[in-house]
Amino acid sequence: MNLPLVFRLLSAISWLIGLTMVFSLPAAWPQFGGQAEFETRGFYALIVSIVLSFSAGIVLRYFGRGAPETLYRKEAMAVVGLSWVLATVLGAVPFLLSDTVYSAAEGVSVPMGITDALFESQSGFSTTGATVLTDIENEQWVPRCILFWRSSTHFLGGLGIIVLFVAVLGQGSAGKALMRTEMPGPSNEGSHERMQHTAWIFASIYCGLNLLLATILRLEGMTWFEAICHAFGTMATGGFSTRNASLGGFGSNAIEYTVIVFMVLAGTNFTLLYLTLLSKPGKLLRDPEWRTYIGIIVASTAMVMLVGIYLTTDFNQQGSLPQPQEFEVAFRDGLFQVVSTLTTTGFGTADYDLWNNFSRALLMVLMFVGGCAGSTGGGMKVIRHILFVKILRREIEHSFHPSVVRHIRLAGDSITDPDLPRNILVYFGLVALIFTVSWQVLVGLEPDSTWVAAGHPVENKLIDSASAVAATLHNIGPGLGIVGSTQNYAPFSAASKLLFTFLMMLGRLELFAILVLVVPSFWRVR
Amino acid sequence: MNLPLVFRLLSAISWLIGLTMVFSLPAAWPQFGGQAEFETRGFYALIVSIVLSFSAGIVLRYFGRGAPETLYRKEAMAVVGLSWVLATVLGAVPFLLSDTVYSAAEGVSVPMGITDALFESQSGFSTTGATVLTDIENEQWVPRCILFWRSSTHFLGGLGIIVLFVAVLGQGSAGKALMRTEMPGPSNEGSHERMQHTAWIFASIYCGLNLLLATILRLEGMTWFEAICHAFGTMATGGFSTRNASLGGFGSNAIEYTVIVFMVLAGTNFTLLYLTLLSKPGKLLRDPEWRTYIGIIVASTAMVMLVGIYLTTDFNQQGSLPQPQEFEVAFRDGLFQVVSTLTTTGFGTADYDLWNNFSRALLMVLMFVGGCAGSTGGGMKVIRHILFVKILRREIEHSFHPSVVRHIRLAGDSITDPDLPRNILVYFGLVALIFTVSWQVLVGLEPDSTWVAAGHPVENKLIDSASAVAATLHNIGPGLGIVGSTQNYAPFSAASKLLFTFLMMLGRLELFAILVLVVPSFWRVR
Repeated sequence: MNLPLVFRLLSAISWLIGLTMVFSLPAAWPQFGGQAEFETRGFYALIVSIVLSFSAGIVLRYFGRGAPETLYRKEAMAVVGLSWVLATVLGAVPFLLSDTVYSAAEGVSVPMGITDALFESQSGFSTTGATVLTDIENEQWVPRCILFWRSSTHFLGGLGIIVLFVAVLGQGSAGKALMRTEMPGPSNEGSHERMQHTAWIFASIYCGLNLLLATILRLEGMTWFEAICHAFGTMATGGFSTRNASLGGFGSNAIEYTVIVFMVLAGTNFTLLYLTLLSKPGKLLRDPEWRTYIGIIVASTAMVMLVGIYLTTDFNQQGSLPQPQEFEVAFRDGLFQVVSTLTTTGFGTADYDLWNNFSRALLMVLMFVGGCAGSTGGGMKVIRHILFVKILRREIEHSFHPSVVRHIRLAGDSITDPDLPRNILVYFGLVALIFTVSWQVLVGLEPDSTWVAAGHPVENKLIDSASAVAATLHNIGPGLGIVGSTQNYAPFSAASKLLFTFLMMLGRLELFAILVLVVPSFWRVR
Repeated sequence: MNLPLVFRLLSAISWLIGLTMVFSLPAAWPQFGGQAEFETRGFYALIVSIVLSFSAGIVLRYFGRGAPETLYRKEAMAVVGLSWVLATVLGAVPFLLSDTVYSAAEGVSVPMGITDALFESQSGFSTTGATVLTDIENEQWVPRCILFWRSSTHFLGGLGIIVLFVAVLGQGSAGKALMRTEMPGPSNEGSHERMQHTAWIFASIYCGLNLLLATILRLEGMTWFEAICHAFGTMATGGFSTRNASLGGFGSNAIEYTVIVFMVLAGTNFTLLYLTLLSKPGKLLRDPEWRTYIGIIVASTAMVMLVGIYLTTDFNQQGSLPQPQEFEVAFRDGLFQVVSTLTTTGFGTADYDLWNNFSRALLMVLMFVGGCAGSTGGGMKVIRHILFVKILRREIEHSFHPSVVRHIRLAGDSITDPDLPRNILVYFGLVALIFTVSWQVLVGLEPDSTWVAAGHPVENKLIDSASAVAATLHNIGPGLGIVGSTQNYAPFSAASKLLFTFLMMLGRLELFAILVLVVPSFWRVR
C-alpha cells in the first residue's frame, strides 16, 4: 500500500472541503440567511473549521511528499473510502464548534455530541438526508450558516459520486455494462483524457441543474437561501430541507411538482442527460434502465393512488365517490413520495405512515431499488435489478436445460462479460447479509425504551428498525414509524447512530470501497 | 417432455399415499385414538380417500403405459414437483370428506374449505407444521384418525425428502459439494445401485429413529397415539402436535429434553448419522457444517438466555438476582425454541412473542438458516450459509486483488467446482426475491381487518406478514404475532392460504423443482 500517495490525494479532499465551507459564511448575515441578526457563533465555528480543514490538508500533503505517482487499484479504493471518512470527520466540526442544538430535554437545550455531528455530516455527504436535528427552523438552535453548510455537504457528496462514477465505477467491462453507454467525449482521446473530459461534463450538468432548480424555486416563492438549500437537497438526491415539515412546509403545489421533475432528473444516468442535451433524446427514451425506472414510478404511483382512493381511506372518505381534488392530492402526494423514495432523496410532503400498509410496504421495497446507475441516486440501482431478474430467470431455465448457454440480453445487446452475473449476485448477497446483520444488531443495541420515550408502540420496533437500516444503507433518509417522514433519528443511542453512519457510507460507495477498509490483508504491503 | 413416464412414476406416489392412509384407520377405534367412541365419519372419509388414491394411481398408470424407460433431467424435475402437488391434493381429501371443523364462528362450527385442506395437507407433506385448525383437542371437531393422518403426512414428507436428497440433490458436483461426504455403500457398486443402497440406508435410519423416539415418548408418559404423532412431527422436522399448546401441553421436562435431542438429530446430515452408527463419530464431530450447526445452537441459546435473564424480564423478575430454577427454565425454553426454529420443526413450549424483541428477531433470522443438508430439516441449510459467507469474503478480497484466484476451502479441502459459487448466490438471490415479492403480495391480499378480528395490533401487520412468509417458505410453521407459537393460520383469507401453500412447496423442494413448473419452455417438447 502506497500510503504517501493516498495522503496526497486526501489532502486535496481536505482543501476542497475547506473551500466549500467558505461559501457557507454569507449565510451568517441576515441579508442572505434571513435570520434576525448576524450569527457570531456559527460564523466563528465555520472559520475555525475552514482553518482546520486547510491545516489537515497541509499535514496530509506533508506526509504525502515525494510519493510515487502510479495509482494502483488498492490505492484508488483506499482514497475513495478514506476520502468519505475524512469528509465526514471534517464536515462534523462546524456542528460541534457552533454548539448546534439538536433537541431539548426537560426545557434544557442539548448541543450535538460527537456521534450526532458525525451522523449529520455523513448523512449529508452520503446524500442520505437523515437528520438528528429536531427543530431546524429554530435559529437559536441551528444557525442559518450551519444549516447552509449542512445542505452544502449534499452538494459536495452528489458531485463526488458523479465524478467517482466516471473514475471508478464506470471502469472495466462490468462497469461498462452497468453504464451501458459509452462515456461522452471525442473518441480520439486517450482513456485518461476522456475520463477527465467526462467528469467535467458531468460536473457541469450537475452544477447547471442545481442553478436552474434554485432559480425556479426562487421564482416559486422561496428565498435564495431556501432555494439553494433545496436545490442541493434535490439534485444530490439528499433530502435535507430548511423546514421541519420538509418540502411539505411550503404548501406549494408548484414547488412540489418542480421538485418531482428534478428528482427524476437527478435519478437519471447523467450520460443520458448529456446525450439529451446534445439533442439525442431518443437515447434516453430507448434506454432499458430509464424505461424501467419510469415504469416503476408510474406503476407504484398508480398502486398508491388506487389502493389509497378505492380500497382504503388514505385520500378519500369511506363510502363517498372520490372527488377530482382528491385525485389530484392522491396523484401529487403519491407521485412525490414514490419518486422521493425511489430516487433515494427522502423529501416529504405527506405523512405516509398514515397510509395503508400495502403502500407503506411498497415504499419500503422501493428503498431497495434506488435510482439509475450514473446518477446521484443511491440504493442498489435499477439496472442491477433488471440484470438480477434476468440472471435468475436464466438460471431457472439452466436448471432443466443445463447444456444451453445463453447470454443475458439488454435492449437487444448480448452481455458477454462472464463476471457480470457473479458481480450482480454478489452485490445482492452482500446487501442481504448487511441488512440482516445490521437489523439484528440494531434491535439489540437500541433499548425498547427509545420507542416508549418517543411515543411509538414498542411492537413496531422490529419493522421500524428494519426500515431504519434500509433507509440509511440505501441513503434515503426517512423510513417507517419512529424514523418516518415526520420523525427523525434524534431518539437513537450513540451506538446506533454510529451504526447508521457506517451504513450510510457503505451504501453510498456501493459497499466495496468501505468493506475493504476492514480487511487486514488490504493494508498489507504489496 | 415424456409425460407418460411422468404419469407412471406419479402413479407410484398415489399408491404410496393410499397405502399410508391405511395406517391411520386404527386411530378411529377408541383403543388406539383414545377418544370416547368409534369415529364413523373419519373412518369412512379415510376409506373413500384410500379408494380414491388407488384409483388415481390406476388412472395415472393407464396413461403411463408403454412409456419409454429413460428418465431425463426434465422428467425427473417434473416428477419431483408434481408428486408434491399430487400428494397435497390427495392428502387434503380426508380433511374434506370427514367434515373436519377448523374453527367456530358465532357458535356455529365451520368445516374446512378446499384451501384450508390444501394448506393443511401441504403443511404436512412439506414438514412445515403450520395449521389452520384452532382446536385439535376437540374430538368432535377433529377425529383422531384424521389427526393421525395429518401427522402421517409429516412422516411421508420427511421420508420423501431424505430419499429425494439421495436421488436428486446429492447428484452432480454441486450436490456432492453440498453433501461433502461420499454416499455410503460398497464402493464397487455402480452409481444406480449405490444410490438405491443409500436410499434404503437413509430410510432405515429415519424409520428407526421414529420408532426409537416414539418408544421413549411412550415411556415418558404419552399414549402410543400421541407418541407416534410426535415422533413423526419431530423426525420430519414438521411440528404438528396433538395438543393445542403444542409440546408445551404435556408440561414434562423429560419430554422436552428428549424432543430437543431428536430435533438436533433430525437436522443432522443422515450420511453423518450413518457413519456414527458405523462407529465413526469423528466424521460427525469434525464436519464443518455440523460444527457450525451446533455452534449456532449454542450461541443463539446463550444470547436468548443472557438477554432474557440479565437485560430483560423474560425469565427473571426485574431487579432481583436470578434464581437457579430460572436458569433452568431459560436454558430449556431458550434451547428448545432455538432448536425448534433452526431445524425448522416449529414445536412450541413457550410463547416467545412475550420475549424481548432481540430474541424474537434472532428467531426470525434463524428461520433463514435451517438445518444441515441431507437432513429432514428445511430452510436454506447451514452449508449454504457457510459457503455464502466464504464466497462473499473471497469477492471482497477479489475487489482489490483481481488477479488472485483462490478456491473456496471447506475443512481443508478446496472446492474446485466452478459452478458452486454461482449456484449458492443464485439460491440466496431467489430466496430474497421470493421473500420480498411474497411479503408485498401478502400485505396487499390480506385485509387489515384480519388483525383486528384476531385481536392483534394492525401496526404489526408488516412484521407479522414477513414472519409468516419466512415461516412457510422455510417450512418452520409458527412465526411472530398473529402466526406466533400460540396462534395459527386460521384467520387468513383463502387467497393468502393458497400463497402459503405455494411457498411451503417451493421451500421444501429447494425452489427449482417448483419454479420450473411455471416456466412455459419447460413443458415444450424437447
